[in-house]
Amino acid sequence: MYAGIDLGGTNIACAIGDAEGHIVAERSVPTHSHEGPSAVLDRIARLIREMAPRVDAVGMGLPGRVDREAGISQFLPNMPTQWRDVPVSQILRAPLQAPVYLLNDARLATLGELTFGGREDWLRKFGTVVFFTLGTGVGGGIVVEGKLRLGPWGAAGEVGHQTIIPDGLLCGCGNRGCLETVASAPALSGEGVRLMRSGLAPQLHQLVEGEASRITPQQMSAAALAGDAAVMEAIERVAAYLGIAIANIVSLLHPELVVLGGGMAQMGEVLLQPVRQQVVRRVGMFPAHGVRIEQSALGDRAGVMGGLALAARSGQV
Amino acid sequence: MYAGIDLGGTNIACAIGDAEGHIVAERSVPTHSHEGPSAVLDRIARLIREMAPRVDAVGMGLPGRVDREAGISQFLPNMPTQWRDVPVSQILRAPLQAPVYLLNDARLATLGELTFGGREDWLRKFGTVVFFTLGTGVGGGIVVEGKLRLGPWGAAGEVGHQTIIPDGLLCGCGNRGCLETVASAPALSGEGVRLMRSGLAPQLHQLVEGEASRITPQQMSAAALAGDAAVMEAIERVAAYLGIAIANIVSLLHPELVVLGGGMAQMGEVLLQPVRQQVVRRVGMFPAHGVRIEQSALGDRAGVMGGLALAARSGQV
Repeated sequence: MYAGIDLGGTNIACAIGDAEGHIVAERSVPTHSHEGPSAVLDRIARLIREMAPRVDAVGMGLPGRVDREAGISQFLPNMPTQWRDVPVSQILRAPLQAPVYLLNDARLATLGELTFGGREDWLRKFGTVVFFTLGTGVGGGIVVEGKLRLGPWGAAGEVGHQTIIPDGLLCGCGNRGCLETVASAPALSGEGVRLMRSGLAPQLHQLVEGEASRITPQQMSAAALAGDAAVMEAIERVAAYLGIAIANIVSLLHPELVVLGGGMAQMGEVLLQPVRQQVVRRVGMFPAHGVRIEQSALGDRAGVMGGLALAARSGQV
Repeated sequence: MYAGIDLGGTNIACAIGDAEGHIVAERSVPTHSHEGPSAVLDRIARLIREMAPRVDAVGMGLPGRVDREAGISQFLPNMPTQWRDVPVSQILRAPLQAPVYLLNDARLATLGELTFGGREDWLRKFGTVVFFTLGTGVGGGIVVEGKLRLGPWGAAGEVGHQTIIPDGLLCGCGNRGCLETVASAPALSGEGVRLMRSGLAPQLHQLVEGEASRITPQQMSAAALAGDAAVMEAIERVAAYLGIAIANIVSLLHPELVVLGGGMAQMGEVLLQPVRQQVVRRVGMFPAHGVRIEQSALGDRAGVMGGLALAARSGQV
């Protein structure tokens, strides 16, 4: 039995399962990251012990840069700064009596999707696959011929930090005009709020009963399908930016498959169709029709299932 | 002995050499591509036979998409349409009595640079390297952990067809705002012509004696160093766009090395310095200082030397 952990700024998700991805228990608890690393790690250890008497190994995703060899968190942009240089693996190993393997959360979700996403065997073993997590941030991972590309610091795969608008908005990473600035859930929802307040989104207004805080990409997709043309236009604009980012990667690597995961991917075909059109339009050097662009099969579970895969593989990716 | 051929729209370059990249003879003749494939291939066969009594194999770069397995040219955008589906390897094999291996020209130059560019052994075997050919077009190649990434059709590695300006100029590939539209030799030289005609480039005017047709990126770099501030600004603008494209790839793949080749790379540090600054500024998710950005060691010879490498490896890349 293994434990898969997905540590986020808001919640800690945990799954207990085997090397084939069969989950026997699953839970999510609030992170309360302001309490600091030791309180949060203590919470994770208790959570795992409550769910399984013992586990053979733990695979854990952290929202940022980690030193995989040493099992240390390095730079988690959306967490308190005390997380810098915390020996996470060592701290958790004592109470759990099991090795703890770390990976960036988006790369972990990529591993989960590749291992347990119901893909064909050849794709898993030899395929070139690009994974996007579309949520508050835009992260991802790149698999080249069956191997997750991590680079010297496990930092490769940052598909959300391509520059899309050279003089665009300031991004959390310090750059301007990254994909994340124009195609994240907050960017899209923010535009939904504006359209609703401008009276251009009557269906959205009805769906969320006028409450801006209830607007999500999925509510916007429902409103667009119900007839809000302005909301549809906002979605298509985001899809066009996302399509540029995907087309850039297709021109560079010609992957067999692009998988869209994270909360925003649950918009489904309303988002996927204009993305596919944009990719075919933008890739001029070869016909890109053959590149599959699909929604994640695992949804929210990609991270914890990646954790199971990482644990079962003793940290080897 | 092997022959390396680099077939371009203007010239055919040929080198005769061994598997270690020692060149014993080298020549370049005009392509005269309007004469059609059989005349051009006949010229290539004669050129090789004049230079070497016999060769064991030929490695040849074509400016576009080829079917490597079948040895057929598929789509050469800057050559006459008769080049579609020409069995190049078969046609050349008879007069040369040697196998002929094909590859896209920019990928062939990447192979040449990687094999004979004087790089460290580990980099050649395990390194992740990105190569740009900066010329009339912008091509390239990507090596992931020592292996040239070709993709299903040998079409991966099109670093010049990333969208840099979403609603930018029409590119030869059909897309808008590709790197090639803003950072190719004609784009930069065209701006040099404009600046000279506007009276903003007195040094450039003197260097080329007022003749627009003599303006090249290298002349512009000389004019910028001699004091033409407007020319320096034009170069820095191109460097910024190139820096965006490189930064995007660094965020995606975190390569150890980026090599700039092709005629425009001969501008040297005037181009390289602002490129390096832009890359460090644009890559926000991890420090990118460690990624080396260097000028090609082989210059114009990268293609033919890649041909020698391809021939010596019996077409395996």
